[in-house]
Amino acid sequence: MAFVYPRTIHFPDTDAAGVVYFPNYLSICHEAYEESLAAAGIPIRTFFSAHKIVIPVSKSAAEYLRPLFCGDKIGVSLKATRLTPDTYAIDFDMTRLDPKPSKPVAHVRTSHVCIRADTRERTPLPAELSAWIESTNT
Amino acid sequence: MAFVYPRTIHFPDTDAAGVVYFPNYLSICHEAYEESLAAAGIPIRTFFSAHKIVIPVSKSAAEYLRPLFCGDKIGVSLKATRLTPDTYAIDFDMTRLDPKPSKPVAHVRTSHVCIRADTRERTPLPAELSAWIESTNT
Amino acid sequence: MAFVYPRTIHFPDTDAAGVVYFPNYLSICHEAYEESLAAAGIPIRTFFSAHKIVIPVSKSAAEYLRPLFCGDKIGVSLKATRLTPDTYAIDFDMTRLDPKPSKPVAHVRTSHVCIRADTRERTPLPAELSAWIESTNT
Amino acid sequence: MAFVYPRTIHFPDTDAAGVVYFPNYLSICHEAYEESLAAAGIPIRTFFSAHKIVIPVSKSAAEYLRPLFCGDKIGVSLKATRLTPDTYAIDFDMTRLDPKPSKPVAHVRTSHVCIRADTRERTPLPAELSAWIESTNT
Repeated sequence: MAFVYPRTIHFPDTDAAGVVYFPNYLSICHEAYEESLAAAGIPIRTFFSAHKIVIPVSKSAAEYLRPLFCGDKIGVSLKATRLTPDTYAIDFDMTRLDPKPSKPVAHVRTSHVCIRADTRERTPLPAELSAWIESTNT
Repeated sequence: MAFVYPRTIHFPDTDAAGVVYFPNYLSICHEAYEESLAAAGIPIRTFFSAHKIVIPVSKSAAEYLRPLFCGDKIGVSLKATRLTPDTYAIDFDMTRLDPKPSKPVAHVRTSHVCIRADTRERTPLPAELSAWIESTNT
Repeated sequence: MAFVYPRTIHFPDTDAAGVVYFPNYLSICHEAYEESLAAAGIPIRTFFSAHKIVIPVSKSAAEYLRPLFCGDKIGVSLKATRLTPDTYAIDFDMTRLDPKPSKPVAHVRTSHVCIRADTRERTPLPAELSAWIESTNT
Repeated sequence: MAFVYPRTIHFPDTDAAGVVYFPNYLSICHEAYEESLAAAGIPIRTFFSAHKIVIPVSKSAAEYLRPLFCGDKIGVSLKATRLTPDTYAIDFDMTRLDPKPSKPVAHVRTSHVCIRADTRERTPLPAELSAWIESTNT
């Protein structure tokens, strides 16, 4: 079953317009990505250093459909797609669950490139990450 | 039983030293405060505007005992104390729950002043907030 | 001459990977946008409420070309484009100025929709904002 | 003459109450600390790793005197005090410069402990940092 990251909107997510500051939608999606990796047994703190890789975000695209307010409850689902041996993309759907009725609030897509930590040259994804990508599609 | 706010540390909480950036300890405590209010039936988004009050933080003090890393799981407990008819303080204890063994990671105290939104003059706390303060001590 | 927003990278901009956290590139671009408006005589705090409008970001797209480290000095230039009577887009170029040599670090594009604060219906841009858009193209 | 860090308040500094979120006062003070070190020829990115030390914040205390709004211009001055061979404190004064008249907006004090990056045992401050502390008092 699909992974959904539950999240409540808090004061530090908001700005003076009274709603979530737009870059924080991306930040919340990254939290969902971290939680999805953790749920798949990939500990974010140690996995990357153990493999001597980093996987920076190379691109992001977001559509902001609705404002989010302090106290709102949302769910973030995600699906990863392998692009090349060393890149993948993640599509995130953010949905407001409370107050009802449920409504989509944003679509976000991030692209990721796997590189060696020392030389910053591209390197193929570790098998565990390939398995995680597949797992997000079932 | 005492309210405990569970929280996982994520990338956006950290800085280039590899651990949670110290002002973010205070931010996480404020999340716990918001959740405690919500659990007591005080909806943070509408309660303050309905009462035409704001309750800014007038002081904070924090002791940072241990670093927190991405993926760490913590619990934040809190206890509020009425100081005067229009002020209260909150003591927060942050504890690292995972990795084991549990360890205290920070103590934080914030002081709050209830003022009218229009004139910014001090005004007594609404009854619901007084009840919430008491509830944190039982 | 084109407006350039100078910015030094600080600890709170970074994450545990040791570089600027990707959503913060967007946040820094928004700072440049605010400074460009201020330089054109549009005070961000009062202008929107005086016109009873809000202009949320409806879309963002970013390419992250290079990592940014604590202490790096960058410049952000921008160019706005009117799309319809009630929408515009802003293209941001972020350049690392120091350490030398200068290098592009990111391209960001944000799309904005002008709506009435009360009904959240689309409404044409105020004349001052139209003038600001033109000014960014000269 | 005393070092003053000039800073304009931007949207990402604020929260839904329309003013700067209280932990961000501490974050802005840390920016001033970084800039003061840089002005003294201590490059924050490389200095600590070259000396194999880290200097975490062990305590913070803040008094928030006035709200800060988007577009406000402030100045942050600081004075460091050596406490022991391996610790120091920094006192920050934040002043709103614009809109006029100038007003104090916050006092912040942070305490710092110099430890070895590998063992996390206390270690005396490098001479450059001792010199920086003295320089903030003249």
